[in-house]
Amino acid sequence: MSNAAVTPVRRIACAAVPDLPHASWSNALALGPELVLSGQTAHPATAAAAQAGAALGTYEQTLLVLRKIQALVEAAGGGLYNIVKLVVYVTDIADKDEVGRARREVFGAQPAYPASTLIGVNALVFPELRVEIDAIARLDVDLRHLSEVPSCLHPR
Amino acid sequence: MSNAAVTPVRRIACAAVPDLPHASWSNALALGPELVLSGQTAHPATAAAAQAGAALGTYEQTLLVLRKIQALVEAAGGGLYNIVKLVVYVTDIADKDEVGRARREVFGAQPAYPASTLIGVNALVFPELRVEIDAIARLDVDLRHLSEVPSCLHPR
Amino acid sequence: MSNAAVTPVRRIACAAVPDLPHASWSNALALGPELVLSGQTAHPATAAAAQAGAALGTYEQTLLVLRKIQALVEAAGGGLYNIVKLVVYVTDIADKDEVGRARREVFGAQPAYPASTLIGVNALVFPELRVEIDAIARLDVDLRHLSEVPSCLHPR
Repeated sequence: MSNAAVTPVRRIACAAVPDLPHASWSNALALGPELVLSGQTAHPATAAAAQAGAALGTYEQTLLVLRKIQALVEAAGGGLYNIVKLVVYVTDIADKDEVGRARREVFGAQPAYPASTLIGVNALVFPELRVEIDAIARLDVDLRHLSEVPSCLHPR
Repeated sequence: MSNAAVTPVRRIACAAVPDLPHASWSNALALGPELVLSGQTAHPATAAAAQAGAALGTYEQTLLVLRKIQALVEAAGGGLYNIVKLVVYVTDIADKDEVGRARREVFGAQPAYPASTLIGVNALVFPELRVEIDAIARLDVDLRHLSEVPSCLHPR
Repeated sequence: MSNAAVTPVRRIACAAVPDLPHASWSNALALGPELVLSGQTAHPATAAAAQAGAALGTYEQTLLVLRKIQALVEAAGGGLYNIVKLVVYVTDIADKDEVGRARREVFGAQPAYPASTLIGVNALVFPELRVEIDAIARLDVDLRHLSEVPSCLHPR
């Protein structure tokens, strides 16, 4: 593939989402306009809260996670409106409405929400975690400005 | 990123996969030729069938889900042959062959299947659901027409 | 979408990761420079080892999986440095450090790791499997050569 056009890669660094010295992953990579992120959690705020006897619920954790994702997208030069997809992993499927409430609070002012998938998983990387979110963002698209909506061509 | 080329975003609407009024997600977004979808399930057909005492099995649910994904891709101007990746979440891993049967029925006439990942999860958003599928489609690729296949350069 | 630019699709074949005759998925598709892969596991080595009474642990399985992914990317004309994202599914979340150890061994010499998400799931497709990895690669990006890192514009 020696003649392939080369897309520059930037590693996105951000005070709000520090790179851990021994991490074996990148928090976020910008491949040209496309942002590839690692799954984000509310750790270490969740651990501190649990130690203080005031464990964070799913709504609070989801808000923290979405703000971390926002911080990474902003560090790359974009904003919330560049987030096009979320995959939400929860440890208790009953928490889905709390996730929805946080998602509405963060994205509700836009004409379109990101696409989103929500799955109940067996475990996340720390026991206090109730939600982890895997996001995709594109700096070249803006969910505040939609093109015309096509109707369904082949209804079933 | 003020000089970034802008890729138009279309929200894909489709009678077969209605947008719920209070949804905090988009069913499907077209970013230029790329289709980003939310995870699809056979709800509400699964709920109706369960209430009628005839719960839908994984094979039937998978067919319904793949037809919903097809309807969304067609609403965007494409077809089944534009679907390049599936992530299949099942609540019982023993159902993997039922998923394969449905996948073969839907995609088997093409020279290539989409890539596919299948995972056993703890829970999906409604108790009757046995399968959810997260799909990626590209309107600019067509799995009915493949280029030459390279051999393995570095077999291990 | 009749005027869309057409991106050629190659089905990636590789002796190290054979296409099973009755598979209802493609192991890997190259869509222009983008590589879409099916989730990879250490099967059938895991089954053979289990039958021999020497089941493979998560560290060993992760290495085998990453080498399979590498073989597919190399068959497409690239290398490890083209892998931009991993989604790691483990059956026991306690194994996360074993995954990290293998990831460090494979990618540690590069200036940047792929982004990575790690989730504890209920089950994988064979009982001996402890880890499955879903990877995304891009032949047009190279993690050995990073552009400058922007600082966080909006710390929170």
